Amino acid sequence: MTATCTATYRLYDDKADFHKKAQGIAVGLTVGSWTELPAAQQAKMEKHLGKVVSVDVVEGSGAGERYADIRIAYPDINFSRDIPALLVTIFGKLSMDGRIKLIDVHFSGDFLSAFPGPKFGIEGVRELLGVHDRPLLMSIFKSVIGHDLSELQEQFYKQAAGGVDLIKDDEILFENPLTPIERRVEACLQAAERASRETGQKLLYATNLTGPTFRLKDQARKAIAAGANAFLFNVLAYGFDVLHELAADPDINVPIMAHPAVAGAMYPSPHYGIAANVLLGKLMRIAGADIVLFPSPYGSVVMPREENMAIKHALLTTDLEADYGSAKQPLKRSFPVPSAGIHPGLVPLILRDFGHDTIVNAGGGVHGHPQGAIAGGQAFRQAIDAVLAGQSLQEAAASHAELKAAIDIWGVKEA
Amino acid sequence: MTATCTATYRLYDDKADFHKKAQGIAVGLTVGSWTELPAAQQAKMEKHLGKVVSVDVVEGSGAGERYADIRIAYPDINFSRDIPALLVTIFGKLSMDGRIKLIDVHFSGDFLSAFPGPKFGIEGVRELLGVHDRPLLMSIFKSVIGHDLSELQEQFYKQAAGGVDLIKDDEILFENPLTPIERRVEACLQAAERASRETGQKLLYATNLTGPTFRLKDQARKAIAAGANAFLFNVLAYGFDVLHELAADPDINVPIMAHPAVAGAMYPSPHYGIAANVLLGKLMRIAGADIVLFPSPYGSVVMPREENMAIKHALLTTDLEADYGSAKQPLKRSFPVPSAGIHPGLVPLILRDFGHDTIVNAGGGVHGHPQGAIAGGQAFRQAIDAVLAGQSLQEAAASHAELKAAIDIWGVKEA
Repeated sequence: MTATCTATYRLYDDKADFHKKAQGIAVGLTVGSWTELPAAQQAKMEKHLGKVVSVDVVEGSGAGERYADIRIAYPDINFSRDIPALLVTIFGKLSMDGRIKLIDVHFSGDFLSAFPGPKFGIEGVRELLGVHDRPLLMSIFKSVIGHDLSELQEQFYKQAAGGVDLIKDDEILFENPLTPIERRVEACLQAAERASRETGQKLLYATNLTGPTFRLKDQARKAIAAGANAFLFNVLAYGFDVLHELAADPDINVPIMAHPAVAGAMYPSPHYGIAANVLLGKLMRIAGADIVLFPSPYGSVVMPREENMAIKHALLTTDLEADYGSAKQPLKRSFPVPSAGIHPGLVPLILRDFGHDTIVNAGGGVHGHPQGAIAGGQAFRQAIDAVLAGQSLQEAAASHAELKAAIDIWGVKEA
Repeated sequence: MTATCTATYRLYDDKADFHKKAQGIAVGLTVGSWTELPAAQQAKMEKHLGKVVSVDVVEGSGAGERYADIRIAYPDINFSRDIPALLVTIFGKLSMDGRIKLIDVHFSGDFLSAFPGPKFGIEGVRELLGVHDRPLLMSIFKSVIGHDLSELQEQFYKQAAGGVDLIKDDEILFENPLTPIERRVEACLQAAERASRETGQKLLYATNLTGPTFRLKDQARKAIAAGANAFLFNVLAYGFDVLHELAADPDINVPIMAHPAVAGAMYPSPHYGIAANVLLGKLMRIAGADIVLFPSPYGSVVMPREENMAIKHALLTTDLEADYGSAKQPLKRSFPVPSAGIHPGLVPLILRDFGHDTIVNAGGGVHGHPQGAIAGGQAFRQAIDAVLAGQSLQEAAASHAELKAAIDIWGVKEA
């Protein structure tokens, strides 16, 4: 039996013969031609031939509504064990051929074996922080562009002192003369130590890894030498293979947090692109993201809840056979991080949807707290503790001034 | 005056205050906050602040039709001189924020100065081939997966003997034991020499550069050592920065041909993504593609003609000031190559739309010729000569059996 990777497409067309179309994809993207080949050639090429696995047609009720979900199996022997080769095979030319969206991918065990996946995963990140019994809390730098090291340090300290577990750079902070990566890491980790003496907590600082692709590994090593204990990385702006190679490098021995910047160019259309569960779920996990950010369904930048749940499933599932393929090694789980527009009043909803293995991630919800960023972090921690204790936020607010101030301005959305 | 790069977005929204939204983008993607800053802070941050250049609202006549074209200028000082930094700044988070498409980019002279662009460009490629007075002709390998070196060599020879100027690998041919890159290059260039002795023509073979990102330069050097005289590259599967760094590397002293694989995940939706003139036009040219393939409006994989013309303009314009920015150095022009479904009967249309500075590119239109691939190439050359001589294809077919056979089966689309 030939090992294959299987792609599922949703193809909209009011009139197409979807079965014929599927056959055309299976042949066209593999051996090129089939029925016209002599039998001897067919015998030789059989192992390279794509196969139609299924075609599910939904007729719809009006113009533009008819579609089919088409699954095609591509023999592994046709492509090398890297994400560019897989994507070019299953959605290269085909991405331009009508109203078609790549909605799922299932890998062969052999293909998966080239992907060690997250180096830390959820358990590894928890281990680094020494926190196993609750969702984590992350805070995002607010204004960073144009600020110097001492300003960043001060802002970092305030976030850290509120009891957050992780702090991430803004994804638009690039190499610049005011705050180059190695000095930024030093300054922020000094602030982390200061806060740590007060809170007793450990902290990861995801510093933004940027610059020319072929120098990223050097940048990472330089930052690690300066003490960096995590990286933020704009995966879609660089390509999944770059994430994979950074994550697979033994020298880059810190967690990598994937930012979804530019992903909106690909997932939101119902008719084109790559679905969020593939783009921000499966591909991020096999490429080695320990932590994956994506737009939440709660806040300012929204993604439908079912898409959030599909990403969560892709990042958390341990039934690899069903969703990924017959993995020869376990694939660590990646932290799902619904982001944007998060305030303490949303914590019950987030924990209902994501459970304990998530990171509550806030920017304005920390910095915009009426009593300042320290209180902002504290209000989130109080909200998390309340939900874990089975309390309503209103009850908890009665004895926690920071949480009370937060829900007074942002309100509470009950789960 | 602050140097800026300017992005134009088309934003669909039935109710939004587009001016307010534009202001939110300009502030949110640069300094983070503005009106609430004290005057002293504003003075310090002014040079980092994004500016709304224009907001053109089109009210539309029905639900879902109201949109605005919004132009925002981003100060160069905020990002490093690389495409990932630019994309993350102008269309990172924003790509996920509603029905929004990036439809144009204009660069600062300073940003452009980091991009030498195509190493060869149209004139350089023509120089290598010694062909200055006509459009070029390219042929695409047909079936390659599962074939060995001698089969590839034979197929190569037949294409070359028909008088094509360039032959490209199939973009889905990756490193494999049957035809590894350096042996493929050797075998094909032997075939090229054999054909060259018969046709008197030179030939470029764009071999597919594939594999892990951080080993691409080594792969390229290995192929060049084996005689490679051009590369095909799946730019979107790797990222624009990788193309840029390959093109800027003095050791990679051969033309690079950009394949549009996976681009369909981003350009076709009217509401999301990155427009074709940016994705397959401007960004390809500044990143250094000498030759750019994209779906033609004529054949099997279609892109609307106006989008083709916008790509053509982006690749060919010499008025850099108007379309790119105040470039400090000239940016060579890239060959536009409308592709897919091309047969000799389309040559009048292609030359009407693209003029002489294009490459007529065919796969099935060469291999599917009733008299074989050699006649297939010849028919295309006869069609090109006819158009240049002001003849109709029917007239030319009267004295050219190969062209006659081609138009007998595929017909002629008059320009």
